[in-house]
Amino acid sequence: MADYEIFELGDVVLQSKQTIRGARLAYKTYGTLNAARDNVIVYPCWYSGTHLENEWLIGPGKALDPEKYFIIVPNMFGNGLSSSPSNTPAPFNGPRFPKVTAYDNVVQQHRLVTEKFGIERIKLVTGWSMGALQTFHWGAIFPDMVERILPFQGSAKCSRHNFVFLEGVKAALQADAAFADGFYAEQPQKGLRAAARVYAGWGFSQTFYRVEADLKQMGYASLEDFLVGFWEGWLLEKDANNLLAMLWTWQNGDISANDLYGGDVKKALGAIKAKAVVMPASTDLYFPPEDSAIEVEHMPNAELRTVETYWGHFAGGPGTSPDDIAVLDAALKELLAS
Amino acid sequence: MADYEIFELGDVVLQSKQTIRGARLAYKTYGTLNAARDNVIVYPCWYSGTHLENEWLIGPGKALDPEKYFIIVPNMFGNGLSSSPSNTPAPFNGPRFPKVTAYDNVVQQHRLVTEKFGIERIKLVTGWSMGALQTFHWGAIFPDMVERILPFQGSAKCSRHNFVFLEGVKAALQADAAFADGFYAEQPQKGLRAAARVYAGWGFSQTFYRVEADLKQMGYASLEDFLVGFWEGWLLEKDANNLLAMLWTWQNGDISANDLYGGDVKKALGAIKAKAVVMPASTDLYFPPEDSAIEVEHMPNAELRTVETYWGHFAGGPGTSPDDIAVLDAALKELLAS
Repeated sequence: MADYEIFELGDVVLQSKQTIRGARLAYKTYGTLNAARDNVIVYPCWYSGTHLENEWLIGPGKALDPEKYFIIVPNMFGNGLSSSPSNTPAPFNGPRFPKVTAYDNVVQQHRLVTEKFGIERIKLVTGWSMGALQTFHWGAIFPDMVERILPFQGSAKCSRHNFVFLEGVKAALQADAAFADGFYAEQPQKGLRAAARVYAGWGFSQTFYRVEADLKQMGYASLEDFLVGFWEGWLLEKDANNLLAMLWTWQNGDISANDLYGGDVKKALGAIKAKAVVMPASTDLYFPPEDSAIEVEHMPNAELRTVETYWGHFAGGPGTSPDDIAVLDAALKELLAS
Repeated sequence: MADYEIFELGDVVLQSKQTIRGARLAYKTYGTLNAARDNVIVYPCWYSGTHLENEWLIGPGKALDPEKYFIIVPNMFGNGLSSSPSNTPAPFNGPRFPKVTAYDNVVQQHRLVTEKFGIERIKLVTGWSMGALQTFHWGAIFPDMVERILPFQGSAKCSRHNFVFLEGVKAALQADAAFADGFYAEQPQKGLRAAARVYAGWGFSQTFYRVEADLKQMGYASLEDFLVGFWEGWLLEKDANNLLAMLWTWQNGDISANDLYGGDVKKALGAIKAKAVVMPASTDLYFPPEDSAIEVEHMPNAELRTVETYWGHFAGGPGTSPDDIAVLDAALKELLAS
């Protein structure tokens, strides 16, 4: 029994001039759309995650309170629920799945929001990591529709260093001969595990490891226990081509790479009318606060609010750091109340 | 024509209770040992490098001036010149090469220095990265012999985060089926290139990539040009088992893991009598300055001097950042003159 809905998009021509035929956008909503249709929050997903992995921020009493708001969580293309390498019919399945940008994702999410629900104003768009990438896109592509954004631990454009980190993840996965250029019969276990080990150094900070938060706060018995249990366990559940599809989306994320802004990032950031709180984490190794500061400089209505933490990229992430999530939740409440 | 000498060590029993039979220590000296035998500098190698890759700091007018000092560069076990997986006879060749610690390396280097050259006092030990690891070891294992140390961009013990970063490098290399558990007929190209791509994100800082120093200062035409030309080019020249042997040495580097200090890192650091200048780089992603600060706290005669730079780990490294190398060279001169 699926706990989500499907919005049928028809044939979607992408920025890459490839087509997802019979494209499907999987989504889940939480709460009830009010009569004025003005209690809407859009909350896009992060790399590899589905709506289920977004739920740590949703609940009664939290900022994203389904008793007050109508929260829409759209699944990203490539995540295995929306159209993806793993669920698309031949010949566009597997490694032949079309290249999808964050722009493509957000344009189709906009169709869901408007065509399916008749929504004209969005109170808040928020998201973590690649969810933040989509959040920035929402603000820039639909500036008159989005009232507030709170992108956390993410960027409006994939930085060159972030791109290189992802090259390492990709190369580790593809080094496994079982990957077979994407035409694998079974998941390339070795490659997925290697990619996870590469990721492990990036996801949390040097200080996180120094203070042994993996053991003392997350309850793992040893570093190896953590590397296998948390990291390898994470990627082993995924489809390799799906991961690479989303990785491409991430590496090519650029708020300005579209007809609206023609590659001018400053212009795209400057076009965001939404009241914005941009929340990097002080020790995030792939979205360092310096990058967020540069982006905020070009946003007319934005505040930079860096979370001081040793949890690195996982500061506001899915349930790992309660203290940082409390800071995030408070910021979301404050922004929603403003 | 080899440009280095070999010191025959005989059969060396290691901390791992494995033996390198007919062990060989490759080394090169620069300058002349004076009559008092008191102009000695020991300058160990970094990960993957040989004495040739240490030469960027040696030369007339530089701190490591062969016209004044007798500079000994010992090659690390596993680097392909000293006993290594690639040059050891069967059955201890390849993946069966014994596990060697930094302690083992330094104890054998000490034999070279004393038995071959009759040296009793060392004016300075210095080294970059794993060379710094060996430098710390020299200070702690032979505190009455070493007058000064200047470890730069390295640590006395491999941190847990550093360990994890290396797990990613290792996993990427080993994911290649051509690696064949180390019994490869030819070098595992895909794995070596993947390991290099993983390394690329760690070697330089986020800011390095943001300001495009790879293009503007190092002269590469594009990021991909840099990833292939600099990074893949670096590891493709190496032997996979050699790299893994040295990686094990690195991951297990611990100044206190020996009978002298019984695992007590503070005690080992506290035993270093040498006047020390410890030079981390402000943006080093695997030897962050915080780690160096903690180490310096426990050293009785040490100064922490952080290099402010965006070159990350490569700040004082082999010829990449002239400005940072000038800072390092000045510090070496100052320490030598003190």
